[in-house]
Formats: sequence, structure tokens, C-alpha cells
Amino acid sequence: MAKLLQEYQIGHTFGIATAEYHERRARIIAQLEKNGQKGIVFFRALSIFWLSGFGFIPTERPVAFVLKTDGSTALLVPRLEVEHGQSHAYVDRIESYPEYPTTTHPMLYLQKLLGEMGLANSGLAADGDGYGAYWGYRGPKLSEVCAEATVSLYPRLIEEMRFTKSRAEIELIKESCKWGNLAHMLLQKYSRDGASEIDVSTRASSEATNAMLLTLGPTFKPGGMGRVGASAGFRGQIGKNSYFPHAVTLNATMRKGDVLVTGAGANVCGYVSELERTMFVGEPSAEQTKYFELMCQAQEVAFDTIKPGVPTATVDREVRRFFEENQLMPYWRHHVGHAIGMEGHEAPFFDIGDETILEPGMVWTVEPGIYVEGLGGFRHSDTVLITENGMEFLTYYPRHLEAMICG
Amino acid sequence: MAKLLQEYQIGHTFGIATAEYHERRARIIAQLEKNGQKGIVFFRALSIFWLSGFGFIPTERPVAFVLKTDGSTALLVPRLEVEHGQSHAYVDRIESYPEYPTTTHPMLYLQKLLGEMGLANSGLAADGDGYGAYWGYRGPKLSEVCAEATVSLYPRLIEEMRFTKSRAEIELIKESCKWGNLAHMLLQKYSRDGASEIDVSTRASSEATNAMLLTLGPTFKPGGMGRVGASAGFRGQIGKNSYFPHAVTLNATMRKGDVLVTGAGANVCGYVSELERTMFVGEPSAEQTKYFELMCQAQEVAFDTIKPGVPTATVDREVRRFFEENQLMPYWRHHVGHAIGMEGHEAPFFDIGDETILEPGMVWTVEPGIYVEGLGGFRHSDTVLITENGMEFLTYYPRHLEAMICG
Repeated sequence: MAKLLQEYQIGHTFGIATAEYHERRARIIAQLEKNGQKGIVFFRALSIFWLSGFGFIPTERPVAFVLKTDGSTALLVPRLEVEHGQSHAYVDRIESYPEYPTTTHPMLYLQKLLGEMGLANSGLAADGDGYGAYWGYRGPKLSEVCAEATVSLYPRLIEEMRFTKSRAEIELIKESCKWGNLAHMLLQKYSRDGASEIDVSTRASSEATNAMLLTLGPTFKPGGMGRVGASAGFRGQIGKNSYFPHAVTLNATMRKGDVLVTGAGANVCGYVSELERTMFVGEPSAEQTKYFELMCQAQEVAFDTIKPGVPTATVDREVRRFFEENQLMPYWRHHVGHAIGMEGHEAPFFDIGDETILEPGMVWTVEPGIYVEGLGGFRHSDTVLITENGMEFLTYYPRHLEAMICG
Repeated sequence: MAKLLQEYQIGHTFGIATAEYHERRARIIAQLEKNGQKGIVFFRALSIFWLSGFGFIPTERPVAFVLKTDGSTALLVPRLEVEHGQSHAYVDRIESYPEYPTTTHPMLYLQKLLGEMGLANSGLAADGDGYGAYWGYRGPKLSEVCAEATVSLYPRLIEEMRFTKSRAEIELIKESCKWGNLAHMLLQKYSRDGASEIDVSTRASSEATNAMLLTLGPTFKPGGMGRVGASAGFRGQIGKNSYFPHAVTLNATMRKGDVLVTGAGANVCGYVSELERTMFVGEPSAEQTKYFELMCQAQEVAFDTIKPGVPTATVDREVRRFFEENQLMPYWRHHVGHAIGMEGHEAPFFDIGDETILEPGMVWTVEPGIYVEGLGGFRHSDTVLITENGMEFLTYYPRHLEAMICG
């Protein structure tokens, strides 16, 4: 079994310890036993990473992770990932298939592996009925290749286990917030009249990434599945275009008077955070100031509502009430926020239709937005942790108007 | 209907013209009519972009594009994308739902839209039976919300239409190759003994991106769904770690004698390319030189085999024969290459199990690799176009040993 990185790196304080992988698996096993199942197959790359520490590039070649109720684990990978898996995956056993598509389908190798593990004709759980359609992959369903097993699907199992974060996970998210903060500081420093959106963004992101890696030192391994390092940018939300809540990068040039809506974060061993700010190139107009202040107040309404035991829907409902009381509904475009940890957005949501109750250890973005046609968008996003008594800011960038002026 | 970017930008020579969107849709309509279907629903973001020019950030909020056999089109988006869609999507009609999850599920808005379009109780095609599990989304199947329609699934329809590229698409891929070449030149320039993998990669990528955007000018809109600009990097394939064909970035420091396996490309209006090279920090050893030359010869075997009318499997088979004849099978890890255009990998594949026949207008990567434990990986990847008579290199970076020495 591969040693996990943090076990042989002196001074390396980040990462998920072996015991935590065992604890995650034990929770799954308890659920399988309750349902009378002998094992479970995971096809989702992020879930495989979460259960084994194996970060890899998902392609058309399926990867599957198998967990049995006796605690034993196996990983099925394409031939090209065998040694990579041996070095980086925390699993008992690695099996491989030569290639995809080749002449024998990878799912038949999975069938054989499940047979050898005694799972071919048992109650079998899975996160999906086969590998998803990705980069040209096609193949049979798990229930087709394991026709003698009773296959039950649990697509939300890992997602729901990830709602509440462990102490180690929270530390990684906090570390992500630090480097997102640096990237955002640099983004603000370089934003001025005449600056190019993409130039400012790539400069801030690469300088912050390099500072992050020099600071954490050579024993730090970025890990995870996604983009390496810290980043900050605008995603096209420059000037009037900031009116689009989800614009895409447009190669814009900033001009005096523009509203800028930013986004920053960093990937630390697969964990992320979200920091967004509404900034101005030069002094904001009276109208820009008005909507900026209302947006900050809407975010305060959310902060004041967030505490353990409160339904997530209540947070969205209180913010909507603030929008209604201030005649802001014409400028409303989206709910208050989402959970965050390893993906850009995660369930559950601060949304009137979400039925989750807030619990300590959950990590959320808080980001109500106001979007005024012809003027711009107004949105701060902060990442916050639910604590025993309320909430704690994990992002700590200034939020007030005077600190938001660039150039 | 939104004007497409290239229609109002003077001097903007890149992009897909309106007529090409009509031509793409006409091919789909012909197929629907053959199958007796009145319309089709697309949920995949990339397919929606390909059919409407609407590049957006896929989230837990589903987006659906509907095409009827009479040529009419509609887009269902969340409220936050309405104005963005109106400005950027080439469609007749945009409908929206307030938010996800909220109190009425987005799929019920799709049900209503399909009813209004006269598709609720007809033969209906779709690229999937509902929106995929993405960023916490869950919802009913299309066949459940349209119980009176006969829903037929065509998950591969757009993928297969994209096998052969149009003239405009080939131009975009060629433009991508240029900026990938620049990023790679800078990557090589900065690679030397003691250099940091991530520092070299972020410097090369941001400088190439800025040069690309200054060159193409302010009328150039990056477009597409993915990362903006040009990039080059190593993805952890530094020194002995280059032995892993799909390593992940490890914050490595380059040392004299290291093999480096690189990757470079650029996103131009949603189109990409692939350029990979095997480089050396300082002079390569005799053993490194041996495997480098064998790798180049394996790539030549592929180039010599590629021409219209040849089965893709033959290309892989010929390269495997070369591996066998040279006792290289212990170092074999993957097939020869994949189609490319808009995604990192696309079907079909240069693989003994692939049944596609090469046709003019297809674009492929050619990248047989040799992986020697303790020594490193050896892989060039070039992007090539199938022509009437053979193939044309779209990537044009030097391939020979003398040009591969860094530092």
C-alpha cells in the first residue's frame, strides 16, 4: 500500500491523515451493513480522491474504487495509471485494464475484480450505474456487467458525507483562504484605468501561486484534482458587463468608473475557498455607492441569520425579505450561496427550496448579489464556517467601500 | 436574437459564422426527420455552445437547448443567465426558471417550454435523460417530466458530428497551435537546473497569454467554455516522475539530467490543440537518448500510416508492432492518440479497439509514449489534420533531440 505523502514528509503539516481515510470508509461501511450490502463501487473521480487520496486526471479511461464491508479496498485503473496509483493511492490492491476502448471493455475487468472480491452476486452499492459519459467514453452499465448482483445507487452518498467538514479539511480551506487573499490583494493592486482584465488576472494569479509555493516550501504537494496554486480574476465582470452574474472572460480593458466583480481562491491539497469583491476603478458614483451599500447590508442580513440549527432556506428567505423591503427584487438574480470544500459549488444551498439544517463544521459561501442593467453587478462572496454558536469568517479581505477603490 | 460576436466586430477574423450554426442544426434536423422525431433537447454545456455560441459556466443550475424540426430554437436558463443569454446565445427564444433548487424544479419549466413548442407528446430526442449530476444538482428524468412523449436518447450525436471539422474550426485549431507554440517556447526558455516547475509554467503561460491577447487585439473575444489564453506546463512530469504518463503537478524542482515531458495549448473561441515535447535539462544520457530516438521513430510510424481511408485501429496496431519489434512493450502504457477540437481528449481514438475510418477534416493527436522506470517518460504529441492525401502538421515545434535541450 502506498504511503501517503504527509507520512514521509518532514515538516509537511497539510493533508489528510491515514486515520481520516479509515474513518470516512467506516462511515460508509456502517451504512452498507445497515442496507445489507457487501460492497460499494465509486466511479466519480472526486469521490475516489476523497476516499483514497489518489488525485488523477479523469479521461475517457474509467477508474473505479471498490470498498468492501470488511474494510478491504481495490482500485481499477488503466495501465497508464498503475505506477501512479501504486505511489499515490491509499488502497490495498490495484488492478488494471490495458487501455480504452481496446478490444476488451474496462467494465469487464471491473466485473472480474468484483467477482474476485466476492461481490459479483451480492448486494452491491454504487455511486452511479457505470462510468459517466466523459471525453468520448461509452460503456455498459454496472448492473449489466454484474447481472447477478443487486445494484443499488447512492449518487449523493459522498456529497452528503462532505456537508460537514473535519478539522483537517477546515485547516486546508483556511489555508486556501490565505492564498486567495494574496491573489486578490495583487489583483486589486494591478487594477487601474487602462489595465487589461486578463493581464491583471494572470499576473496576480502567477505571483500569488509562486509566493504560495515558496512559502509552503518544497515539501508541500499541491495534490487534488484541479488547477494548481492560487488565482484571482474577473471572469468578464468588468464595467457594464459585471451586470451578468456569470459572465465569461471577454478580454476587457478597465476604465475609470467601472465596477469590477472579482473572484479569488487557491487549491490546497484539493480543498478550495471563495473570495469575491465588488471594486471600483476610481471613485464610485452616487448610484454605484447606493447599490454597493445595499449589497453589503444584504450580506449582513445573511451573516446575522447564520447559526447552527437554522434551516438553510431561512437564510435565503431573510435576504429575499431584505430585497423586497428595499425594492431590490428587479435586481435579484440568484440565491444567497452554496456549500464549498472541494468543488466550485457544492450542495446544499442557501436557497428557499433547500431543506438542510445548518450544523457546526459546514463551510459556506455568502454572496447575495444586486445586478443593475447599464450600471453593473454588486456582489461580495465570503467563505464562512458554521461554529457551535454562530459563524466564523474564513475569508478576511476588507469588505467596506473605502477599501474597494483601485487605481 | 442576439447578434453573434463576429458579426459586429470589425477586423475580427476568428469565430463561427451564423451560417455554420444553421448548417449544424440542419444536419440534426435531417436525422430527427429520418427518425420521426419533432425535436431534440440538449443538456450538455459543450453541445449547447456548439449549437448556439453560448459559452457559460456550467453549475448545479441546468441549462437546456431545444431544437425543433422546423428550425426554431429555445434556451432554458436560470434567471441569472437571462441577459447573458440574450447577449450571447444565437437562439430564437430564451425562457428562464428562478433558481435551483428553489420551490419549483427547473425540469418543470422545461416541461412547460416543451409543451408550448408542441413537443410534449411527440417523438422527442435528447442527449441525455435529464441534466447530469453536477455540482450538487439532482432532478427528475426528462422521460419522467415528459411522460407523454417518446424520448429517445442520442448521447453520441454531437460528438460524432464533431469528428470532422469545418474550415472555420480548423482555422481556430491552427490559431490555437500558434499560441501553444509560443507558450512552449517560453517554457523551454525558462526551464533550467534549479527552476521550479510551477514558476516556469505560470510565467510561460501568462506571458504567452498576454502576447496572444495583445496580438489579436481588443476585438478578439476568447469565447468558449474553458480556461482563457495559452498555457504550457509539465503536470509533474519532471525527472523520474515523468515516468507516470498522467502525473499531477508536484511542485518539483528541475535538476540537471532530468527528462521533462511538457504540454502546451491555447483556447481560441472554444477550440484547442495539443503540443507535447520530451525535453532534457542539460545533455541527455546515452540511455535517455536511446529511448528518445525510439519514441520519435514510433511517432514517425504513426505519421507514415495516417491517411484518409485507413482505420484508426491500424495506426495503433502499426505502432504496437514497432514497440514489439524493438522490445518496447514493457514500456508501453497507452494508445497512440485521440481526436481533438474542443475537449482535452475526444473520441475517436487511435486504438486497436476503435472502428473509425480516417477522413479528411479530422484532427488528431499523435503521441505514442515510452515510460522507463527510474529514467523517465518519453512522449511527443503533435496535432495533425487529415487531408485529402495524407496529413498536415498543425503543431510545428521542433521535434529533434538537439532542439530539446534546456538550460
